[in-house]
Amino acid sequence: MATNTRTKEQEIQEFVAVCHELKEEILEMMTKKYSMPTEAVEWVKEVIEYNCVGGKMNRGISVIHCAEALTQGKGLTPEARKKASILGWCIEWLQAFFLVADDVMDDSITRRGQPCWFRVPKVKQIAINDSFLLESFVYSILRTHFRSESYYLDLVELFQEVIMQTEFGQLLDLTSQPLDAPIDLDRFTIERHQKIVVFKTAYYTFYLSAASAMHLSGVTDPACYAQCQDICVKIGEYFQVQDDYLDCYADPEVLGKIGTDIQDNKCSWLIVQALSRATPEQRATLKEHYGKHSAESIQIIKDLYAVLDLEAVYHKYENDSYEELCKLIDGVTNMPTTVYHMLLSKIYKRKM
Amino acid sequence: MATNTRTKEQEIQEFVAVCHELKEEILEMMTKKYSMPTEAVEWVKEVIEYNCVGGKMNRGISVIHCAEALTQGKGLTPEARKKASILGWCIEWLQAFFLVADDVMDDSITRRGQPCWFRVPKVKQIAINDSFLLESFVYSILRTHFRSESYYLDLVELFQEVIMQTEFGQLLDLTSQPLDAPIDLDRFTIERHQKIVVFKTAYYTFYLSAASAMHLSGVTDPACYAQCQDICVKIGEYFQVQDDYLDCYADPEVLGKIGTDIQDNKCSWLIVQALSRATPEQRATLKEHYGKHSAESIQIIKDLYAVLDLEAVYHKYENDSYEELCKLIDGVTNMPTTVYHMLLSKIYKRKM
Repeated sequence: MATNTRTKEQEIQEFVAVCHELKEEILEMMTKKYSMPTEAVEWVKEVIEYNCVGGKMNRGISVIHCAEALTQGKGLTPEARKKASILGWCIEWLQAFFLVADDVMDDSITRRGQPCWFRVPKVKQIAINDSFLLESFVYSILRTHFRSESYYLDLVELFQEVIMQTEFGQLLDLTSQPLDAPIDLDRFTIERHQKIVVFKTAYYTFYLSAASAMHLSGVTDPACYAQCQDICVKIGEYFQVQDDYLDCYADPEVLGKIGTDIQDNKCSWLIVQALSRATPEQRATLKEHYGKHSAESIQIIKDLYAVLDLEAVYHKYENDSYEELCKLIDGVTNMPTTVYHMLLSKIYKRKM
Repeated sequence: MATNTRTKEQEIQEFVAVCHELKEEILEMMTKKYSMPTEAVEWVKEVIEYNCVGGKMNRGISVIHCAEALTQGKGLTPEARKKASILGWCIEWLQAFFLVADDVMDDSITRRGQPCWFRVPKVKQIAINDSFLLESFVYSILRTHFRSESYYLDLVELFQEVIMQTEFGQLLDLTSQPLDAPIDLDRFTIERHQKIVVFKTAYYTFYLSAASAMHLSGVTDPACYAQCQDICVKIGEYFQVQDDYLDCYADPEVLGKIGTDIQDNKCSWLIVQALSRATPEQRATLKEHYGKHSAESIQIIKDLYAVLDLEAVYHKYENDSYEELCKLIDGVTNMPTTVYHMLLSKIYKRKM
């Protein structure tokens, strides 16, 4: 039995150390297996250090917590904890792959409190190839650390599928507004918003962590994975609605950033709710002012959200979702449900 | 026994038909498995039609020819031919993934006689996500058509490794000149050129086709794959040197495009040979005029290539490479060598 007596800080420190081990393995592969020149190895070192570390690491650490929950109190052996940490970093590197590329596509300015990678003068469009490399490294890590496991192919296919689903989500998001035609708010429907959220966020943020831990813990029943997917998709939906809500209503000091969804014309939960409740006149106002950068237009949108009482709509949504999720989780009989309660408790009523 | 009585045109027609079948499978997956909205399905249809078809399809068709050669005259069964065609298209789609992204990174104008995909007004930066999707579709196709084969995992890992190698090649190429500093021709060495060529082109252009066909044909001995890699790397090097030579010396009418390596500051075989042969004065001239867009600068470089007699250097290289390759191939004892002679004959003394 291995009890977890780590403090939160120790846990994070230990987890971060694993990232550096994985980085060293990749750099060694470049040097020894592929005889890459020093500059290329140094470049990749910087790509990893700039983009894989520095986030909240919630997704990565969730793999450890899910694996722990699946032991039903017995605790993780050091080997199992290490394997969970490695899978956790696979998810973090995967996210780095998405974020580096998303920032190029969205022409973003900053990420995690520093300039986006492609904004670094020597990088620019090379960031696109760097994002590809991060994805390749995930498969390389899986191969190095899991090739002899019975669940290796399942893991590879899990990552492949979740990557494709996330790319579908990005496609839905990027094509929710035409690039070559005027803004068309009719494309912002509740159904479309839900679809974007599930594909772009839910699969890789929740299902991937939970399913990775399940493979590690020896779960083989496909029904468990199907049920896990249903629940994680709902948790992910709830998580993204919170994200959209916090973008407008959170204290920027607590959130750590100032929301810009309104001026950026984002297909946010708030605008789709507003559109679904607006009178024809209010809809005309939304169409006129959404996606504009002037302080006046932003205020008009926020005032209209207040008139439509979206804060109350959100709090009702939050309570309803939570209740629905608890019911769903209580219906699970073939697996320890602490996994799901743990994932849910990480985000319930979050303020940041 | 299945003899191949197809004409060249029939073969191409049959091969192209398989691409459309694969496209339909992907679109059906989007519709049925993932319930994607019609616009997203239509978008992906256009991505595939715009970017996967229209090339010379040499890499794809090589899989069929390699598989045929491996039957040692017995010929391919219809099932084996179909499987080889599918793997051929996996390579073509993989190339589409690279080319769509490369064109964004290089800010290119046209590709295969039409505007680059990211130049289409409604597409722009979405092309980056579209390139990711093309890569994901390759894994999806492998899964659909090869999951029950004993060599499935080998195929998946082969594609993963070749993708990473190609990305390393792109990294070497993109960082051969600093983006944030003046041009530095000292980085253009024969060793660096060779490394770029092997990683960026040789693995996916030759080794991937040959190794895919070998898996299909039941070759399991790792020594065969290692030897195949050695030979294909050398064929790929020879192929890329031809490419660099033709960029400057081919008849544009025959080549189908006008070369721009000199003004684009490319790490071409010609410039690395010139640098390695130049006197200090000639080196200064190269430094002054390489990578400049004026007709005058381009002519100065071409004149210097003539002074250094690079055409003769090339013809000697061509003959030496061919001889060396033939020797290497004749040393192969564990596999039908027609595979390699066939690959080599496809490119020997090519003019386009």
